[in-house]
Amino acid sequence: MCGHEVLAAVLQVRDDRLHVLLWRRAIDPDAGAWSLPGGDLAADEHLGGSIRRQLAEKVDVRELAHLEQLDSRGRPERVPDRRVVATSYLGLVPVDADPQVPDDTAWHPTDALPRTAFDHGEIVRTAVARLRSKLSYTNLGFALAPPEFTMSELVKVYRAALGHDVDPTNLQRILVRRGQIEATGSTARHGPGGGRPAAIYRFTARALEVTDPFAVLGPPRG
Amino acid sequence: MCGHEVLAAVLQVRDDRLHVLLWRRAIDPDAGAWSLPGGDLAADEHLGGSIRRQLAEKVDVRELAHLEQLDSRGRPERVPDRRVVATSYLGLVPVDADPQVPDDTAWHPTDALPRTAFDHGEIVRTAVARLRSKLSYTNLGFALAPPEFTMSELVKVYRAALGHDVDPTNLQRILVRRGQIEATGSTARHGPGGGRPAAIYRFTARALEVTDPFAVLGPPRG
Repeated sequence: MCGHEVLAAVLQVRDDRLHVLLWRRAIDPDAGAWSLPGGDLAADEHLGGSIRRQLAEKVDVRELAHLEQLDSRGRPERVPDRRVVATSYLGLVPVDADPQVPDDTAWHPTDALPRTAFDHGEIVRTAVARLRSKLSYTNLGFALAPPEFTMSELVKVYRAALGHDVDPTNLQRILVRRGQIEATGSTARHGPGGGRPAAIYRFTARALEVTDPFAVLGPPRG
Repeated sequence: MCGHEVLAAVLQVRDDRLHVLLWRRAIDPDAGAWSLPGGDLAADEHLGGSIRRQLAEKVDVRELAHLEQLDSRGRPERVPDRRVVATSYLGLVPVDADPQVPDDTAWHPTDALPRTAFDHGEIVRTAVARLRSKLSYTNLGFALAPPEFTMSELVKVYRAALGHDVDPTNLQRILVRRGQIEATGSTARHGPGGGRPAAIYRFTARALEVTDPFAVLGPPRG
C-alpha cells in the first residue's frame, strides 16, 4: 500500500529574481517549514486534474501560462511516518501577473529559500534546472514574459530566470532567428536613457514548442 | 489508498527498425496482450531501484546504456479493478547488443505494435517521442550506437530511431560540430561498394549531455 501526492513548483520572475510559491506549515510534520502547494491524490482524480484542483487553493490558476509534469520521487523515507510517492509539476506565471495568495503563502527567491519541508527544496531545484534547460531549446520564455515587451524588459526576465547575465543583442538575434519572437511594429514611447524608441516584441506562440529542432534530423522537406 | 507501479519502455534498433521489449500476459487482466516490463513498487524501494530490479527479470540490465524517468500517469480507470499510478521509464540498448530474454518476452517494432495491455501502447509512443526529441538537442545517440561506427552505420541507427531518412553528410557535419562524435583515426577495411576506406567514429561522451546549449544563454565565459 502507498499514498500518492502531487506537488507544484510555481515559478515567477518578481523584482528581477526568480521566485517560487511556498506555504508555511502550521502543524507537524515539519511545522514552520515552507511547502510546495499540493496534496494527496483523490481516488477519482488523474494526476494533472489533482494538481490543478490543489493549486487553485493557493493561487489563481488562470494566471498559470504553463504547467508540465516534472518527475516522481518515491524514497521510502521522503516523508516521515507514511509512505507517499510524489509527482511534481513545474508551473510558470508571467512577470506581469500578481496573483492573490492566501495568508500562509508567499513568494520566495529560488536562490535564497527559507527552511523547506521534506524534499521540497530538492523539487524546487529540479524545477529551476528544468526551466533553464528548456529556455535553451524551446520557446518556454513565453510563459515568463509579458504579452508584449521591449528587449531590455525581456533581458531582465531571462537574466532572472537563468541566474546570470545575458547579452541583449545576442538574445534578440537568436530568438528572432529561431522564430520565437517577432516585432509587433510598435515602439515604446521612450527608449532607455531617452534614446531611440525601443521596438516592442511578442512571442510568436504561447504553447510549448521545441524551437531548435536538429534541422538535419527533421523529416525531408518538399 | 492507491497502488504504485513502475514500467519501462526499453528501446533498441534491430534490423534497421526501432523495437520495444514487451512480454505477453498469460493470465487476466488482459491475457494475451503485450505488456511493458515492470510491476508494483515495494514498500522499501525507491522508484529507480524498483524499475532496475524488475527490469532485471526480463533483460540483462548491464546492456542498458541509458535509463531515465519518462512520466507518471494516474487515470483512475487505466487498469481495471484496481487503482494504480504508473511511473514509466525510457531504457535504451545499443544496436550491437543482443540481450537474452525470457520465453514470454520479445522485441516488437514500435511502428507495428501487437495488441498492448492497458495504456502501455501510449507509454511506448511517449518513449519514442522523448527519444526523438532528445536526439535533437542531446548526445543521446550514444545509447543506441555501437562503441565505434562508420557514418553509414550511424545513419542506419538514426534513420531507424527517427523513423525517416537522414542525410549522412549533414548528420556527420552536425554531430562533429557539436562535439558529439569524433574520428577514432582508424578506418574500416572496405568502404561502401569497395570505395575509399570509411573513417571510424565514436561518441565523445557516454552519459547524457545537452549538446546544443543556447550559446547566448550560457554563463559568460572567461
